[in-house]
Formats: sequence, C-alpha cells, structure tokens
Amino acid sequence: MTDILGEMRRTHHCYELGAEDIGRQVVLMGWVQRRRDHGGVIFVDLRDREGITQVVFNPEIDQKVHEKAHALRSEYVLAVRGSVAPRPEGMINPNIKTGHIEVIVSEIRILNNAQTPPFMIEDRIDVSENIRLKYRYLDLRRPSIQKNIIIRYKASAAVRNYLNDKGFLDLETPVLTKSTPEGARDYLVPSRVNPGQFYALPQSPQLFKQLFMISGFDRYYQIVRCFRDEDLRADRQPEFTQIDIEMSFVGEEDIMNISEGMLQHVFKEIMGKELNLPFQRLTYDEAVSRYGLDKPDIRFGLELKDLSDIVENSGFKVFSGVVKKGGVVKAINVKGGINFSRKELDDMTDFVSIYRAKGMAWIKVKEDGWQSPIAKFFSDKEKQAMIERLDMEPGDLIVFGADMPKIVNESLGHLRNHLGKKLDLINEDEYAFTWVTHFPMFEYDETEKRCQALHHPFTAPFEDDYDKLESDPLNVKSRAYDIVLNGFEIGGGSIRIHQMEIQKKIFAALGMDTSEYEEKFGFLLTALESGAPPHGGIAFGFDRLVMLLCRESSIRDIIAFPKTQKASCLMTNAPSEASKAQLDELALKIRKIKLEE
Amino acid sequence: MTDILGEMRRTHHCYELGAEDIGRQVVLMGWVQRRRDHGGVIFVDLRDREGITQVVFNPEIDQKVHEKAHALRSEYVLAVRGSVAPRPEGMINPNIKTGHIEVIVSEIRILNNAQTPPFMIEDRIDVSENIRLKYRYLDLRRPSIQKNIIIRYKASAAVRNYLNDKGFLDLETPVLTKSTPEGARDYLVPSRVNPGQFYALPQSPQLFKQLFMISGFDRYYQIVRCFRDEDLRADRQPEFTQIDIEMSFVGEEDIMNISEGMLQHVFKEIMGKELNLPFQRLTYDEAVSRYGLDKPDIRFGLELKDLSDIVENSGFKVFSGVVKKGGVVKAINVKGGINFSRKELDDMTDFVSIYRAKGMAWIKVKEDGWQSPIAKFFSDKEKQAMIERLDMEPGDLIVFGADMPKIVNESLGHLRNHLGKKLDLINEDEYAFTWVTHFPMFEYDETEKRCQALHHPFTAPFEDDYDKLESDPLNVKSRAYDIVLNGFEIGGGSIRIHQMEIQKKIFAALGMDTSEYEEKFGFLLTALESGAPPHGGIAFGFDRLVMLLCRESSIRDIIAFPKTQKASCLMTNAPSEASKAQLDELALKIRKIKLEE
Repeated sequence: MTDILGEMRRTHHCYELGAEDIGRQVVLMGWVQRRRDHGGVIFVDLRDREGITQVVFNPEIDQKVHEKAHALRSEYVLAVRGSVAPRPEGMINPNIKTGHIEVIVSEIRILNNAQTPPFMIEDRIDVSENIRLKYRYLDLRRPSIQKNIIIRYKASAAVRNYLNDKGFLDLETPVLTKSTPEGARDYLVPSRVNPGQFYALPQSPQLFKQLFMISGFDRYYQIVRCFRDEDLRADRQPEFTQIDIEMSFVGEEDIMNISEGMLQHVFKEIMGKELNLPFQRLTYDEAVSRYGLDKPDIRFGLELKDLSDIVENSGFKVFSGVVKKGGVVKAINVKGGINFSRKELDDMTDFVSIYRAKGMAWIKVKEDGWQSPIAKFFSDKEKQAMIERLDMEPGDLIVFGADMPKIVNESLGHLRNHLGKKLDLINEDEYAFTWVTHFPMFEYDETEKRCQALHHPFTAPFEDDYDKLESDPLNVKSRAYDIVLNGFEIGGGSIRIHQMEIQKKIFAALGMDTSEYEEKFGFLLTALESGAPPHGGIAFGFDRLVMLLCRESSIRDIIAFPKTQKASCLMTNAPSEASKAQLDELALKIRKIKLEE
Repeated sequence: MTDILGEMRRTHHCYELGAEDIGRQVVLMGWVQRRRDHGGVIFVDLRDREGITQVVFNPEIDQKVHEKAHALRSEYVLAVRGSVAPRPEGMINPNIKTGHIEVIVSEIRILNNAQTPPFMIEDRIDVSENIRLKYRYLDLRRPSIQKNIIIRYKASAAVRNYLNDKGFLDLETPVLTKSTPEGARDYLVPSRVNPGQFYALPQSPQLFKQLFMISGFDRYYQIVRCFRDEDLRADRQPEFTQIDIEMSFVGEEDIMNISEGMLQHVFKEIMGKELNLPFQRLTYDEAVSRYGLDKPDIRFGLELKDLSDIVENSGFKVFSGVVKKGGVVKAINVKGGINFSRKELDDMTDFVSIYRAKGMAWIKVKEDGWQSPIAKFFSDKEKQAMIERLDMEPGDLIVFGADMPKIVNESLGHLRNHLGKKLDLINEDEYAFTWVTHFPMFEYDETEKRCQALHHPFTAPFEDDYDKLESDPLNVKSRAYDIVLNGFEIGGGSIRIHQMEIQKKIFAALGMDTSEYEEKFGFLLTALESGAPPHGGIAFGFDRLVMLLCRESSIRDIIAFPKTQKASCLMTNAPSEASKAQLDELALKIRKIKLEE
C-alpha cells in the first residue's frame, strides 16, 4: 500500500540529538525553518515542536538528495534520513542543545510544500492581531505562542495531579443547562425537540457541583468551559475555562489550604518557583481601607490613610464638608514624589476623574514647609496630626481624595496602582498572593432599587449575621473569599448555604417571591432539605492564571483559538448565518435588524 | 465566629477504620444510612463516599449525646466524635473492612436533617427512571451509580496519565464554533453581538485538531464534550464526551498502537484485566462477509457463509433469481439448533424482517436427511457443496438470507447477534476487540442522489485509489478504521487528507462546487497549503466505553446528569422558555408552533 511516509518512521525529535549521538542513523520529520546555501551545500534548520536540528544536503554525499533539496522553501514539510555528524569547527552553536551536531542526509521525502506564509514564523513580527487570528494555525507555529499553549497544558496537568492526589474526583457537568437569568447574560441554545424552548450554556457549574456534594461525592473538581454573553473587554472571552472545586464538611480554612497547595504545586511545576504558604489574608474592609480596592496589588506600599477624623473640622471646607456629609478624606504619601511636575499632577487629576473623583488636592513636603494650594487652610495641630499619620518627610508628595467612600477608594486605589508602575515600585518577578475575605453579602443596585448578591445567591452569610438578613441586609457579611495575585482576581469562592430556610431568606432578600424562586431553584431547595452537608468551594479563572504564568498581557495569547472583541472567530468566520431549514426546524425567525448607521 | 462544624474536623473517612485503630479518638462525618435501637442503645450506620462505619450512642456512656441521637432519621447529616472500640462478639461483620469495630460517640452535631427520600438509598429499588432523574442528587447517592460515576473519573484519569506519558498535549478547542451542516444536525447558539448570526456547538473538534497538527503540536488529545441534535435512541445523549486524539507524521499502525496501549492501560487500571495486544484486525469487506456487520461481536462463531455460487443455477428460483439480479444467498449454521420450534423459526423470520428481509428459509439436518420446505429444490451436487461449505452435521439448523447484499448482511448479522444471546454462546466476562479497516470512502445517498462520506470528508483515501476519485468513487477505499468491542463501536478515526488538491477532489466528489467549499472550508484549504504534515487520529466514545467498563446497559447510568429521550433534564426542567427581553436582544422571534394533536 503506497503511503507518503513510505517506510520512514521518525526516530527522534528535532531537539533530541547531541554529541553523544554522533554516528547514529536517524529519521527526523519537521518544517523548514531556514535554508542556507553555502559552498554548494544546502543547510536546513529543521523544526518540530521540541526544537531545531541542522540537516545538511551535500552533493558530494548524495547527488540526488541534494538535487531534491533545491526545491525546499520555508515551511515545507520533510522527512529525512541521515547520520549524525559533528559540526565543523566554527559552525558549532553552543547556545542550543543540538548545536554541536548536524544530520548528513541520505534520504529525503518532501511530505508537503507550503505557500509563503503571510508573516514570518518567529517571535518578533510586525503584523496586526487580526492577520494573526485569521491565520491562527500559522501564528500557533511561532515559538512564543506555542510555548504558551504548552504551558497551559502543563498547568492543567499539574492542577489535575495535585487534586487527584488529594482525593478529588473530576466529575462532568452538563453544558446544555437551564437558563437562570442571575448575574451575567446567558448564551441560549434553542431546542428542536421542544420548540420555543431554550437551553443555556453554563456560566459556571455552580449548582451541579453543590448537588454533587449533596449526593455525597465529597470532593469535586473540573477544569471546565463556561460561557458569558457579556460585552467583551480586553481580557474577556465569550467562553472561558475555570478550575472548579467543591468540598464537603469544610470551612474557609480547608478551601484555602487546598487552593494554596494547588497553586504552590503549579508554580513549582511551571516556573520552578517555591511559593511561601500561607498567603496573606485581608478582610474586604481592610483591603479597601488600605489599598482602595478589593483586589490589591500588595507588591508595593503607597497605602491609603484615612484623615477624616483629622480634617473634619478644618478650615478647608471641601474636606470638612465631605466628612460632614458622610464622606471620607484619604491620602497617599508618594515617597520622594516632590519633583512631580505641574503637568504630572494634572495628569493624575485627570486619571482619578475616570473614577468620578472631582479633583485631587496635593502637598509637596519641602525642607522649609509645605508647598500646596491647600496648606494654608490647616491649623498647626491638624498639620502635625497629618505629618504623623502619613509619616511625612521632606521630599514627599501627598495626594488626597475627598468624596463618598466608594469614589475615594476606587480613585485612589487605581491611582496607587498607576503610581506603583510609574515609579517602578513593582518587582515584576514577585508573585504576591492575598486572600480577601468577609465581603458584604449584598450590594444595593440603584437602577433596580433592590439588593444584589455581591458574589452569588448561594453564598452563605456568617451565622452571626443571620438575624440581620431582613432588618439590615447591607451589613450582612458573607463567607466569600477571593484570591488575588499581583492585583488580579484569579479566583473566588465561598462556603455555601446548606440549609433550605437560609437559602429562602436570601432569595427573599434579593426580591424574589416564593413562586419565582420555586420555579427557578425549586430543585435546589428540595435538595437542601434532603440531607445537604455543609460545603464550600472555589473557582479559579484558568485563562488569567495561565496568562500570569506565561507573563503575557493579553488573554488571547494563551488561548489556541480565541474570539475577537466582537466575539467572532476570524479564522472560521463564526458566527455565521443559519439556513432557513435550520431556523424552521428550531421554530425561529430572525427579526428585522436595524442597521446601525 | 460561629460555624455549624464548630471545632470539629473530620479525621477519617467512614471506610478507613479497622481493628488497628481501636482506642483512637476520631471524628467522622456522613449520612445516616440506617438506625437501629437495641436494648436502649442507638446504632447508626454512618455513610460517606468511601463506605460505612457503625457509630453507637449509648446512654450509659453519655446521656445527652444519646438523647440527641433520638432525633436521627435516614439521610440526616452528622458529625460525630468518639473512640474506636471493638464490636462485641457476635456483632462482628467480617464482610466489610470496618466490620470489626464501632465508634462510641461522645459528641454529636446534627449538621442537617432530611425529608424522607422518595426512594431508598440502596441499589435495588423499584422506582421509575423518571423519578430517579427528577431527584438525581438522591439517585447519585445509591452505591451502584456512585460507583459508576467514580469509575468514569478513574477511566478519564487513566486515559490522561497514559497519553501524558506518551508526549500528548491536552489542548482546548472552542465550543462556540462555526456551523458546517455536514453529518449530523448542529446545535445552534444565536449571537447577540452579531444579530441574525449563529455559532454551532461542535459535533467534534475535528478541524481544530487537524489545525493543531498543521501548527506543529505533533500529538494532541482532549477529553471533550461534543453535541449532536439527533433524535435520541436509548444510548444517545444530546451532549456526549469523546476521547479525541490526533498525531502527526503517522500511518494507521501508529494510531492503532497508541489506542491499544491506552485501552490496555485503562482496562488494567479499572478492571485489573490484562488485554492481549495487538487486537484482531478485519477489513470492512471481511467483517461484513463473515459477520454481516461492520461492528462484529467476535466472541462467538455462527459466521455467515456465502452460497451464491452453489445456488445460482439451482431449481429453487428464489435463490437463483436473487443471484441473477446481483444479490447474494448466505447462510448461518446454527450448531445444534435442530430442536428450534416452529414458533421460534417464525420469530426469527419476524426478526429478520425488521431489516427488510422478505423471508427466512431454513433446513434442519437430521440423521436421515434434511427437513426443510426447500430441500427438494436442490440437486445432490448442490447439497453436497452446501454440506461442505457449511460444515453441516446432524443436529444443525441452517438459516438462509437471499436478497441484495446489504439486506442479507444486515439481517443475518443482527440475527447472528440475536442467536448468540439466545443460545448463550457469549462469555460475558470476555472483552473482544477488533479493528475494522479499509472502509468504502463514500456511500450513495438514494434520497439526495449523491455520494456521502462514510466517515467524514477529511478522511484520506488510499493513494492507490486516487485515480478512481472521479471515475469510480464508490470503489475508493478510505484510510478509516473503527475499533469494535463486543459488537459496540467504541471508537473510530482515520488518516486525514493533508494535501489541498486531494481535499478539493473529495469536496467535489461530494457534490460541492468551488464557492461552496471555499465558503465552508476555505480556511482548511489554505491551511493545507501552508505546510500540513501527514496526520491522523481517532476519537473514542467515552460514555460508551465507560458503560462497558461499568457493565451497564444504559448510558444514562454512567452520566451524572443525563437528559431524557426528549432531550430534557427532569431535575432542572431544562430546556425552558426564554424571556421576551432575552429573545429581543438576540433579534429572535418564536414562530407559532402547530400543536401535534
């Protein structure tokens, strides 16, 4: 039977051979990375997944083989048989493992030719991302991105190995599930067998993993695809992968221990880095108070200090007025920031205005006193109190926020991150983890005029707060926890409600009436009164974790076939139109679409 | 901070303690499997994922704890602290690991109570599958089904370990992909960002895994969810899981070797069974000729014999007429079948009629000659030839099929399987694998009046058949292979087309014109001329494989949350209606649906 490979079978990868293999007969297969002709001899860098070997076509060794090699161009696919030989003096490349040898070819099969690619198959290329995505199969040949995809695989394997060892079961949950419009927008899938009805793609397997606990599986995990039909930001995709974990008979500590152990294992396996355990823990209140944000980058200082008590009666009416209205005045001491120019200060004011701050007061601390438009408004006592609280020294720049707490914290929190980068305070080799705990259970939705769950409605409130669920819901703390790495939220979870009565109270606090929650979550409520154990879990955003492991800044560089920000695939042209026959079977019609222009 | 677990943390699972632990203080958590009161003492079988431990509430040890235990009912959730003690003489259960000990409880926390479940949490229950599926979280507590789900996990872990070791990369492919109406019906997902357009859920990651090979990833696998919107048979689900594999620079042997090694590893890990390699190989023609079907159960004989040459000129016009019209006459020797009753023969005739056979001739071979309505039509020479070909002996029953080959093979092939079971010829402990190779590339679709791909359009034809692609497509053999276990197809794959010109010829043979295949598969064609290596792969139906590993007959018993044959989830009530707001965002309207009655 004829076959293009003939009798040839690969004996080695292209990064396997070294000086110890000299004299050996080998068969290599791969792509032409580069061809050079030198003194009548043809040299080809042959590339496969593992690396490169130089293969040599010498007319003095084999005339016919050399002739065939004349046809070779970039990205042609070859099988070559030959013997491993030492490279001539002066041609040794000590930087790569195969740099001491070459393969003198005695047989070649050209397995396929290749059109000239639209961009070079190498790391530094000057081409738009759209072209890269259209020819993604070529883009994936570039070493940096191929390495990313392989790191992604290794990270998932490390996660599995760790969790398997700890008695977790990898259990599958459905992808065609029920739409429960809570949280983000669902992707819907029309049913043909039940016309007019729809499945939803899961935003997470949340309820299924809780049901696994109720079934007694005890420890569950899954590396699972989830879906959210949101308007896409740079780091979002319509489909994303999460490491989903759930455990029975546990409290917060148990989930945190497993999570820390898992991350330690992954960082060890992928980066050879030993993480110190346990990670730092901050309550939500502390994180927001010190860093302005609930996902603080703790690799650098510049912490926020609350000055409200100091300035509440000061002569500076902007500050005292804010405090009297229930707002706060906070400041950051930008150590050594005295030389910031007027322009830089204006830019910072523009920056905080993104977060709705109405201005940004500042003080430069000089040897001979404060330089500041607002210095004159403070008494000596107030000044002294500020100096102490902010640890002010000559050379410092102090920047202020004064407004309602949310605005002050967000604007100064983001300004802090901005300054951390600008002032080069961040050690890029550091991986600083922190847990954030004790989140508020609810936040008030001004548009809908009702409470929303800050995490999700299955998160347990602290038992001590049960009696506030009806009377004072906004002061109920939840048993949720987020894990933050270098300012990115990489995971989050909670201890869940395992008692039907509490679950009903939460649904009620969210404004659902009995018939609404019975229709949507009746099966969960019945399950909760069927012997549900205490349980909790966590989910890690696998894409973002891999992005950080690969030191990439775009999530599209660690996903093999990503979508654009318009949620389309430039390679396959998905999504695309459906045929009338398909729509008829689904009992669907497309409404007339208004043209946007 | 109050927590229902208090300071209690589980020290052991409920199947961990034995005689060597006597005297130890332990904490167990689990469900009340059974409660017995005996002489004022309460005995509870406490159950978790691993098994059962007897825990004892004795009023003479602790009055308060005993009092609390009075509340216990089936499926209540407990945490107990106590000391391991030997069971009294006569209460020892040598059949279970924990049967020598019990735990004398000194502290109890009732973590949750439970309504009386709608069915018993034990293996043999008399309840409809619909009730089981509605309360699936309880059904999953039953030991047999919990065991199935855990075997499923262990099988996937064994597959991963084997393939990871062999240098395969577990790579993720998109779930929101492009609809390419080939093969089965796609599930569609309307796009909100691109209104009027649709994604499709993948029937398999076929093209993506080929693109991974073209990108140079060399060895790919994924245990991946796939989707087909088909009318459901007993063993089909709208979503199913496959073990998806692809390799570069390989021929059939390489894929078969890896597949056999993987199955050997899985069977060893799960069943402790050592499979003998290599598996038997049959060509498609041979399988159909000998067994009537392309997925033969080779655990027993009853092979089909072709008698067409013997009977083509016989006096029995039904036989000779069929042969003259291009049909065949085949027979099975049912060894020792002479005592089949008239009714049994009639039932067999009814059975083959399901497969469109118009009748079933038969001969009983007696010591003193043939008993048969058709015996008289054959000459002595014809009789002698039949006796030799069929190895006829007194006591045998011969059954015949005479029609066009497809009908004869299908009807006798299924009859053979039927007889294998009826006559108890099958060793249920045997796992008999066979490869089936050399499938026809195309089959003729009578309805559409054109060729269809028997596997899929990316399957390579044999190079020796390239010149028949246009002139004689129905005689082109493909490099496809199926793997069959005990009569079930558990996997299939092929060497793929890696040359653009051949791929175009296949599309043309399938009746596509240039614009059609460029629109649907343009990216694949461009990829094939970008340096595509020879490659091939296979996909295993993971659900069916697990079903066979679990010795179950329904695929729903090895899927945690399956759908019914109406493609609905009885627990969550998916699919369900979408809100008008959801449909508006998707630019969709539901057509009026005709009531079926």
